[in-house]
This record gives sequence, structure tokens and C-alpha cells, in this order.
Amino acid sequence: MSQKFDIPFAGRAHDYLEAETEAVIEVMRNAKSLTQGEYLKRFQEKVRCYLGVDHVFAVSNATNALEMAAQLCCFNQGDEVIVPAHTFTSSAYPFLKAGARVVWADIDLKTRVVNVETIESCLTSKTRAIVVPHLYGYGVDMPPILELAEQRGILVIEDAAQVFGVEVGGKKVGTFGHFAAFSFHAHKNISTIGEGGILVVREKRHAELASKLRHNGHCDFDFPREDYWIPAMGNVDLPQLDGQALLPSNYCLNEAACAVGELLIDRVDHINSQKRRRALQIIDSLTEYPELEFHRVDSTRHNYHLLVARMKHGRRDQFIRKMATEHRIQCVVQYCPLYRYPFYQKLGLGDASCPNTDKFFDSMVSFPFQQSLTSEDLDKILLASKQVLRELAHE
Amino acid sequence: MSQKFDIPFAGRAHDYLEAETEAVIEVMRNAKSLTQGEYLKRFQEKVRCYLGVDHVFAVSNATNALEMAAQLCCFNQGDEVIVPAHTFTSSAYPFLKAGARVVWADIDLKTRVVNVETIESCLTSKTRAIVVPHLYGYGVDMPPILELAEQRGILVIEDAAQVFGVEVGGKKVGTFGHFAAFSFHAHKNISTIGEGGILVVREKRHAELASKLRHNGHCDFDFPREDYWIPAMGNVDLPQLDGQALLPSNYCLNEAACAVGELLIDRVDHINSQKRRRALQIIDSLTEYPELEFHRVDSTRHNYHLLVARMKHGRRDQFIRKMATEHRIQCVVQYCPLYRYPFYQKLGLGDASCPNTDKFFDSMVSFPFQQSLTSEDLDKILLASKQVLRELAHE
Repeated sequence: MSQKFDIPFAGRAHDYLEAETEAVIEVMRNAKSLTQGEYLKRFQEKVRCYLGVDHVFAVSNATNALEMAAQLCCFNQGDEVIVPAHTFTSSAYPFLKAGARVVWADIDLKTRVVNVETIESCLTSKTRAIVVPHLYGYGVDMPPILELAEQRGILVIEDAAQVFGVEVGGKKVGTFGHFAAFSFHAHKNISTIGEGGILVVREKRHAELASKLRHNGHCDFDFPREDYWIPAMGNVDLPQLDGQALLPSNYCLNEAACAVGELLIDRVDHINSQKRRRALQIIDSLTEYPELEFHRVDSTRHNYHLLVARMKHGRRDQFIRKMATEHRIQCVVQYCPLYRYPFYQKLGLGDASCPNTDKFFDSMVSFPFQQSLTSEDLDKILLASKQVLRELAHE
Repeated sequence: MSQKFDIPFAGRAHDYLEAETEAVIEVMRNAKSLTQGEYLKRFQEKVRCYLGVDHVFAVSNATNALEMAAQLCCFNQGDEVIVPAHTFTSSAYPFLKAGARVVWADIDLKTRVVNVETIESCLTSKTRAIVVPHLYGYGVDMPPILELAEQRGILVIEDAAQVFGVEVGGKKVGTFGHFAAFSFHAHKNISTIGEGGILVVREKRHAELASKLRHNGHCDFDFPREDYWIPAMGNVDLPQLDGQALLPSNYCLNEAACAVGELLIDRVDHINSQKRRRALQIIDSLTEYPELEFHRVDSTRHNYHLLVARMKHGRRDQFIRKMATEHRIQCVVQYCPLYRYPFYQKLGLGDASCPNTDKFFDSMVSFPFQQSLTSEDLDKILLASKQVLRELAHE
């Protein structure tokens, strides 16, 4: 499909610096281990210090981080988890796997994310957890949500896949909840060579189980050993929490990805602010087209992982069609309300009352906005958008 | 721990050729996508042709491949799966996660793997699947096991983590069962930069579900679309089999790993035969020490992923201790009978009647044997072994 476009939507997010490719070569040539070694420790430590948290686990991808978080929620039958329907599917289904019932929350139309009101209206006596996706790169207003959750004894999971480095009230996103999942997938602002993620865990009792969950239940023996092979080389134990057995998987991230990740933490602030500057330029250049409603945030609260707008004149599909056919620029729509997918419908989760979710999805447009686009590409997108908007205004 | 050793057990398996590091640099610099792209397709096609099978799925690791296979078995309550207790933990626990009851099979003492007799004695009316690990790099005698399974309508899963390229009766291992899992972990004969695996699927009805299981339920729409964004960019559907819902995960392998994997398939036969030649040299140099019983196989049925022996004189621990302290060579013991781990004991799987499994584990030694060892390293291991065996004979 992308051959049809001069500017496809899903290009790679960013290029790698020479030092980053060299780090991978160094791992391939000289690392003592290719997985679960020194680079993993260094990457985790770097992220831990950057965020200012206690417990950080590098994993294969953010979905796997959310699966670990969902298991650590230790759901009992009938427990409910509040999830906005306007998000990527991985924000929701790991919680179904872990035994919870999903309750769809609506979003705020201006910020395109949940807030304490949209969450509060979904609360019942069975609510056990809240999933908060910081969508598009914008940090959700966490303090009131946390306050509500604390009053009710509810767990908070931040789906921080798109917001590494973003801050709310001077505090890094991903450090508010009981758990947070970051993604370093190919399309994210920084990517550990295509796949990768981080699970942040607040409480020690959860952190103690996370490394077992990540790696087959492997752990140390809890008694001193005279010989390294007796009774076995390593132990395998069952992660247990609140009387429940949590079955592990293998979610290990290799050393090459960790080596690149460690270096990328040094430039994530630069990438985020460059994307924000570019986004604001485009937004401010389009103010004469009020039918295109952006969410303008000139602070570290938005990293503009994605550049999206709501089209208020009802001609969204014509806009995308003209951008594609007349300008070879691939705009897309995101994120399909989860209750519209057969996946959730077949699981009895096809009904929802989320008017803003429907309204936004049915009128939104997401522009190509990867960091690897050139200034010329962005100029083309801007000029083409203006031309199409003018044409649509006169039709 | 490994600093204490001149020759540690768990060094990296093999070095990378210049072309392999260059392939990774090429991906990092120029690949259109860093995951789920052209390299994935090429790697899968290469493996498919090498094995001569229809359906191949590259995944994050072999554990994840086994988790997918276990789900596709579609267990009902009470179903049993036969698994040898002498194997890595990932041969067993994915089947517990998928709802089966594990029944421990014993091994044959000479080959250190299951055979049709050890499996047959575990059969009950509830047996629904058999897991066959080709341990240490040796191909299990599959035809009689398949015959038995077919008579009874039982699924066969090959845990082929250690045997890529191995043949039984001229047929590649991993092509016998309904499912097979290969590993390209850091310690394997070929490694996709530390982590990686392949799921082989025999039947089309299973293959049609595998890509959904691998990637969040993502799939194409089953109707033609005029516009690429309507009703959504992509579909998310529920993998269903025999009336059961199978919940997916994200098990995607990045493009860099796939690029290296594609090249490694070209030299796996060379690596396997080099390891076999080296193993036979060591085995044949130790024939004057009959207390050390190797499994000698001079054919493509063994790739000697690992070099292991049973010590028949009852002084295994003294042997390993002397090798470690007097020669700084790290021998280890593998694979602790799974029923001895707290993990399985806490799940009610601590009892077993597997005398050969106990006997072999309690007397076995596994030598450092990664391909990256030099001839001098191997000479040191051989000389040290002889010296220690002589000393033990005179104690």
C-alpha cells in the first residue's frame, strides 16, 4: 500500500546515530552474553534514574509489560477494570486474559484522553483497576485520578506506550500509577530496533514477582549453596500473590536492543522537543482553518508522538481521499473504538455508551509525523492540507 | 560467577560473520520498517524452504512458540498432556497455562530423551497431546510416536529448541508433529542476536489463527474496502477454534533479528557438523574412561548442541568440583527434573515415577561446548577431564 504514497504514514520513526549502530555491532562482536546480561542492567538503570523510580523491567514489548501488570493486579472473578475504548487494543485485552471484566470509559473531546470525570462515571463497587492511556503523546491529568483511586483502593495502570519523557505537573508520566508500560516499538519516538518495552512497578511486593513473570519463573535459591550446581543450576519458582498463582512467560529483551535503548535515553528529550516544535509550527500555520481542531500543548506535557486533528466540517473522508490521491500523502484514522472490533464484540463487549469516542474517531485525521520526515516533507503536508481544505470549503 | 572460570559454561554460542553484522546495520540504516516487514517474510520463507513445510511463524522466543502451540491444542478441562520431566521448564508450563494437566514421562537412559515406550506408559483416556523435546541436539525417534498418536487422535508438539537442522530418517526434526518450536536463543547453535524462535504449524486451520495469536489479534478485513481507513486501518478479530476463544499476545520478532536469522540458515549445517565433529573427537578421546558414558551419534541425527555424559562411578560432584577449582573449567548439570522445582510442586506436580530421569540428572555432567570455544579451549577441557578422572580413580 505504502508504495502508492510519497509520504506514507507508517515510516520508521527515527534514524539511528552512528554511536547507536556501533553499540549494536559491539554487542554482536564482543558481548559476553547476547541476552539477560550487562546491557539489560544498564538500560534498566538508565531508565530508572531518568524516571526517578525504584523498579524497572525491560521486556519484549509494551503489550507484554501490560500483560505482566494485568497479572499483578490479581483479579478475582467479577472484578472490573475501566479502560477507555479510544486506544490501542493492547490497553484492554491483557486485562481480559487476566480475568477482569472490561468497562469502557469515554474520552474528553478536547484532549482525546480520559479524565477523572469520564472514569468516575464508570466506577462500580466491583472496580478493581483503571487503565489510563496517555494517547498521542499527551500526559493525562493524573493527580485527580490517583486521588479517586486511592480513596477507593483501586489500582492504576498507566499505558505510557507513547509518552516516554512526558511530564504532568513536573512529574514524569509513568511514575504516577501502580504500574506503567512504555513502548519502544518501531513507530515510537524512540525505538529499541523495532520492538521493546519497559514495565515500571511501584510496590516492592509486585517488583519481587516481576522478574519471575518475565523469565519462566527463574529465580535464585532462597538458601546459601556450597556448590553452584546443587540442587540445580538455578531455581524455578511459582510467582504467587494474594493466594493466586501467576503463570510466567518469556518476555526477555536482547542485549542489542538494550544497548541502543541506553543511548536513546540520552536524546529522547531532544526528539520529544523537536517533534513538539514541529507540531506547533504546523498547528499555528493552520489557524485560518478552524474546521481543523488540533490539541495545542506548548509544554513537556505533550511529545506529539502523533499529530492528530478533529475535522469539524464533516468532510474528513474527502480530506483523506484528496490527500491520498491528489498529493500522495497518507493520512490515517486512529484509534477505532475497541467495541467496534469483532474481537471485543465476540467477547460480549460490543456495547458502549461513549459518544465522544465515536464522535472523535469518526471525524479525526492523523497526519504522517515520524521524526525521520524532512522539513520538506512537512512543508508538503502543510501545503497539501491547505489546498485540500480550501477546495473542500468551496465544494 | 563466570569470572571464576577460564572456560565458563554459558559463553555466547557463536560469533557473527561480517555479513551478519552488516545485515543488522543495513536494517538500522535503511529498512523501511523495523518490525513486521520484508525481513520477517524472507526469514520465514527461508526456514520454510529449509524445512520443507507449509507454515512458519517467527516469534520472540521458543517459549512463546510453545505458548501458541499450547493454545492451539484447544484443551478442555481434564485433558492431559504428556511431557518428559527431563527438559527445560518451557516444555511444560505453557501447557498448564493453556489448561491441560501435565503427566510426567520418563526418558530412555541411553538417549536421554523420551521414546514411544516411556510415552505409552503415560497414556490414559484423557491424553490429548504429547510434548517431545529433542534434548541436547538429538532427534527423538518420531515415527513410532506419531503412529501411536495418530491411532489415538493425539496432538504431537515437538520442542525442537535445540535441534534446528537435525534429521531423523532423512526427515528434518520439527516437521513430524502438529506443531514444532525452534529456538534461536543466545546459547543455541544459531542465534538471532540473543532471542528469537520459530513456530512450525502443520495444519492450515491452525496456521490461519497463528498470525492473529502472534500479533494482538490483528488481521485483514474479510470484505473488500474502497478506502484504506474505512471502517478502520486494520481489523482486530478473536482467534477461535473448536468453539474456544484463544486470547493473543504480542510475540513479534524485529527485522534485525530476522535479517541475521535469514543468513544463519545458510550456515547452520556447517555449524552443526563442526559441533558434531568436535564432540566425536572428545568422546573418542575419552574411551579409556568408561565411567564417562556419552551418547555417540555420528550422523545428522545429533548436532551436539550440548555435550553431556553420565558418570557411572558415583563421583560426579567431585568431578565438577575439581574441574572448577583445579582447572577453572565450568561444567554444569542439566536439566533438573521439573517435578523437583517449587514451581511444579506448588501446582501439585511434585510427584513422579521417573527413575531414569532421576538417575541421569543425579549423575550427569554437561561440558562447556559453545561453538565459539577455540580448539585450545577444547584441548584444555579434554586434558583436564582426563587428569581429574585419573585422580578420582585413585582416590
